[in-house]
Amino acid sequence: MKMFGKTTKLLVATAMLAGLSTVSLAKDKVYKWKLATTWGPTLSPFIDAPKNMAKLVKEMSNGRLIIRVDASNKHKSAFGILDMVKGGQYDMGHSASYYWKGKDINLLPFTSMPFGMTAPEQYAWFYYGNGMELMQKAYSKHKVLSFPGGNTGNQMGGWFRKEIKSVDDLKGLKMRIPGFAGEVMAKLGLTVTNIAPGELYTSLERGTIDALEWVGPGMDIKMGFHKIAPYYYTGWHEPATELQFLVNKKKFNKLPTDLQQILKIAIRVSAYDMYIQNYQMSAKAWSKMIKDYPNIKVKSFPTSVMAAMKKANKELLVEKTKNKPLLKEILDSQASFQKEVREWTKMSDYLYLKDNL
Amino acid sequence: MKMFGKTTKLLVATAMLAGLSTVSLAKDKVYKWKLATTWGPTLSPFIDAPKNMAKLVKEMSNGRLIIRVDASNKHKSAFGILDMVKGGQYDMGHSASYYWKGKDINLLPFTSMPFGMTAPEQYAWFYYGNGMELMQKAYSKHKVLSFPGGNTGNQMGGWFRKEIKSVDDLKGLKMRIPGFAGEVMAKLGLTVTNIAPGELYTSLERGTIDALEWVGPGMDIKMGFHKIAPYYYTGWHEPATELQFLVNKKKFNKLPTDLQQILKIAIRVSAYDMYIQNYQMSAKAWSKMIKDYPNIKVKSFPTSVMAAMKKANKELLVEKTKNKPLLKEILDSQASFQKEVREWTKMSDYLYLKDNL
Repeated sequence: MKMFGKTTKLLVATAMLAGLSTVSLAKDKVYKWKLATTWGPTLSPFIDAPKNMAKLVKEMSNGRLIIRVDASNKHKSAFGILDMVKGGQYDMGHSASYYWKGKDINLLPFTSMPFGMTAPEQYAWFYYGNGMELMQKAYSKHKVLSFPGGNTGNQMGGWFRKEIKSVDDLKGLKMRIPGFAGEVMAKLGLTVTNIAPGELYTSLERGTIDALEWVGPGMDIKMGFHKIAPYYYTGWHEPATELQFLVNKKKFNKLPTDLQQILKIAIRVSAYDMYIQNYQMSAKAWSKMIKDYPNIKVKSFPTSVMAAMKKANKELLVEKTKNKPLLKEILDSQASFQKEVREWTKMSDYLYLKDNL
Repeated sequence: MKMFGKTTKLLVATAMLAGLSTVSLAKDKVYKWKLATTWGPTLSPFIDAPKNMAKLVKEMSNGRLIIRVDASNKHKSAFGILDMVKGGQYDMGHSASYYWKGKDINLLPFTSMPFGMTAPEQYAWFYYGNGMELMQKAYSKHKVLSFPGGNTGNQMGGWFRKEIKSVDDLKGLKMRIPGFAGEVMAKLGLTVTNIAPGELYTSLERGTIDALEWVGPGMDIKMGFHKIAPYYYTGWHEPATELQFLVNKKKFNKLPTDLQQILKIAIRVSAYDMYIQNYQMSAKAWSKMIKDYPNIKVKSFPTSVMAAMKKANKELLVEKTKNKPLLKEILDSQASFQKEVREWTKMSDYLYLKDNL
């Protein structure tokens, strides 16, 4: 009880004198929560975001809210996060919203969209546009609260064994590229497959696949793809992949107001921090990659390929939003926000960088 | 006392029986702090950062740490913030580190340097490079803790009444541009003046000055410069202006550990938030400006002018760092971090934006 100071000691002594053997204050009730992540226990920086969040909550709440973070090897259900938080088996989750597009297509746009916003643009949409409002609206039928949970920044377009000079070069290629971007690539004539992370390196080495997309240098370096596929294409499909924290709404509502606020702020700061952490990891990893493997060639897809991707993407969006008013509302909100904010990005960071590369 | 619940009520009742008339727990001690800012009471988003920080601290601490934010009209000492926090008249401050370069040149680099890092690059240097460590080292002789306090993003190069086509066009121009950038411009032959914000519009309109630099569209729009100076130059001198929160070290050390952590996290999240808030404000303001005044011309300085600025900047840095080992250590740390991280910025956001403007 030493943290309580003199007055409490006196009070405790008095209470003891009065015959009470143990003393606890309702105000000091300890909440013990569990959080399930999609990620393995060492998948930095993804796993760091929930771990940092839990650490901050513990420190700021003086131990009144303790959150245990379970990696996927513990709960064995990497893609069951939404269901487990919804069902209350877990109080919280950490994953990516676009993984739930099969269950609920309205949850697709909150991670990142092809040719979409960059990280600061997208944070502006979430926090100072109507992104947060639309995200809660989409998640409300699942009785789950959703918050931005960390950004990877711009993801690279992937590792290719051969250079891509035209749309024809893409046709027939086998590529590991999941999600919406995979659908775009399939429209361009690629054979899109999904392969477990542990088998990716061997599949690429043996030619079972010709190309693959992972994240960016910070996370790619451990996978070793740069040793066997020299063409590293710049990104188009996930310009600002935002992860999400999910919170069971009922459980959240039972927390005292100060703990609710501590939780929300710890979530918000851990998300921003992951963006910055991955920025530094990517810079460091890229510097090492290119030093150790000077033959890596950074390429952007040629204009003709990019145009074909944009066209396929546009057509897919029209298909997907047919009779889906909420999905359309979310995508329209993103598109109009992006149109306005991109003008600022162009005249600020873009034109500055152009003269300072 | 209603928030304490049943057990406490019993305890209180017991204590009262034992003859104590008032009960207070040392743990619930309320700390009342004061924060002084350089900014006026409506200078959004600068003034919003400390206000948001104080609000979050109050909510997360359940009212145990209350911080009163005094704008400059209250304390009448906009540029006395460091001294007032150092001297203990104020517990905290919110200002910009480069304002103290006259008192202590080592504090110059923590705001933004010409041709320096962009906002995510600089946050990466602060939090995942050795920026924070160097900042505390530089501030330690003032017995003050310093934290990033909000970023403006890339600042515009300023409003000019005439187009700048060569270095000769700059010579003899009168320009309001403060700080280190002003010294660079002076080396290029401009007459650099400082004029009170309230007189800037009239000075530009009457031709007392030919050009001026303020912040960016979000903050410039209220000043009205776009109505009288049609050339809006892109930035070179403050690519990521970071404000700072200052905290009196002695006062900080007296806080309980949980309040220290609450304060630090509220500071960290308010800083990130101001960056995103100003991103949105700039996008919105620019969209309005160009709609209302379609004759505004966005220009970048020609290559020859940019080269002259870079040369002058480099020479000034050599002069300034002579016999200043700590300043040199800080600037070298920034330069080597920037060199590595810029490669990543280039292959991620820059090349992405190039194809998506």
